[in-house]
Formats: sequence, structure tokens, C-alpha cells
Amino acid sequence: MLYLEDLAVGTVIDLGTVVVRREALLAFSRSFDPQPIHLDATSELARRHGDIIASGWHTGAMWMRLYVDGFLSDVANIGGLAVEQMQFPTPVKPDDQLNGYVEVLELRPSERKLDRGTITNRGTLRNQRAETVFVQVSRARVLKRPVA
Amino acid sequence: MLYLEDLAVGTVIDLGTVVVRREALLAFSRSFDPQPIHLDATSELARRHGDIIASGWHTGAMWMRLYVDGFLSDVANIGGLAVEQMQFPTPVKPDDQLNGYVEVLELRPSERKLDRGTITNRGTLRNQRAETVFVQVSRARVLKRPVA
Repeated sequence: MLYLEDLAVGTVIDLGTVVVRREALLAFSRSFDPQPIHLDATSELARRHGDIIASGWHTGAMWMRLYVDGFLSDVANIGGLAVEQMQFPTPVKPDDQLNGYVEVLELRPSERKLDRGTITNRGTLRNQRAETVFVQVSRARVLKRPVA
Repeated sequence: MLYLEDLAVGTVIDLGTVVVRREALLAFSRSFDPQPIHLDATSELARRHGDIIASGWHTGAMWMRLYVDGFLSDVANIGGLAVEQMQFPTPVKPDDQLNGYVEVLELRPSERKLDRGTITNRGTLRNQRAETVFVQVSRARVLKRPVA
């Protein structure tokens, strides 16, 4: 288990890859973002992109899965605080292969609660053409190493 | 269909309600955010809250569904640009009833593309105790009314 003291500003971690299946994209869009651009390849906006594109919420959720499996599950985190910014520079399409990264931007011990601190991360997803499709800056609370 | 000129800064729209089903919460968590706090009511962090709590990505996606059904589907929008900030002040639990709102913060015609502009919104979800569980500020592109 990694505690606040075990992390270092500037560290970049490769979170691995997720392949965007058309059926998964459609299922998410039906549940949460049923706009034609996310559901119907013949719709006007989808045709401009050559296919349906993923909901930004789906893209973010796919990043979260890589982040949990590749980072958070090893860290003594006690919950997210906030997302400071989130951008989707390039559309995500069926069969894209997205590679996740997380970079530690800041580590700040809490002044009020001595057992914890705040980590600020930049999370990124890049597709198989190395285009950035998702970038966010977010904060979470992480415990310090318990005193023996 | 509503175009940029049909919207007004300060307008607040009630997007209606979604009930958070335990099975839906678990299904989302299994797919995208498989942390114990979102999956296992007996885990330490879930016990602090008295139950599992929803992934923030699920909460955001539930807001998106209300936003699409109650606002975006009536607006000539051509895609999201970015989320500027996103916060989760109160945990979301099974059986919560979440009411969505959107407030128009800014409308700005594009200087380069005369057929469109940018809308900036504050999106909010409040639970059955009127506690804010989700708030974000986001931008999207909206077409101007076509010249006849």
C-alpha cells in the first residue's frame, strides 16, 4: 500500500490500455447520454466524424477504470475531492485503443488533519494515434503512513 | 428547437428526478470504478457513510441523462467543449432521489464562426434532503438560428 510519503511529484504512471467496443459505447450512451451523435452513425453530427463518438462521461469513466486498476487500488486513498478541469480534445470512436496515464502534480499534507494529505493529479487518455482524447486535473485525499 | 438567441443568462431549468437504484449503482461501479467504497457496504470507507456510495462518474453520468432529456435534446447543440470544475459535496447512496437543474451562466457568440456560439452552464444535482451532491460548470457549442 502506498501512502502520501511514498508518492513523488512528477511521477508518471502508465495505466495500461482499454479497447472501446462499439456495443459498450452504445450501451453507455443509451443509459446516460442518448444523443444521436453517440447512438446513430447516420445522424448528421456522427457523419461529420465518420462514426458515432463516445459520450465524454463514458470516456471519463473508462479513464477512471484504468486509474483504479493501475494506481488507486495501490494507494491509501480515502475519497475524491473534485475535478478542476476536464477536456476532450479528440473524439473517441469504436475500436479506439486508449492508453491511460496519471502524473502526480502536487502533494500537500493537510494542516488540520495530521493523518492525511491531498494529491493533485493530471489524468490523460491517448488513442492509438497518440492523440490526447481526455485530460483532467483532479484531487483526492490520501492517508499518511500510520505511525507504528 | 432552441438556438443561441433563444436562451437567456440566468435561466434555471428543472431537469426532473432520477432515483438511484442499488443495482444500477453496483453495475456502474463494477464496470468503471471498482473500489470497495462503491461495491461493498461492509468495507471500512463504506461503513463510515452507512452504505456504499456512488462513483462520482456515475453521479455525473446520471446528471448528464437528466440534462440531455430535459435540456440538450431541445437545443441546437453541436458538442461539448469542456468541464471547468466538478464537485461532489455530499455522497450519493442507494435509494437517493436526485433532482437536476441547469442554470445558464453565459452566452457568447463565436467571433470566428458566425453560425454558432458558446453556452456556459452550471449543472447541479440535489438529493431528497436538498443537499447538493453534484455541481459542475461546463461549456458547449450551440448554433445560432439559421438565416431564412
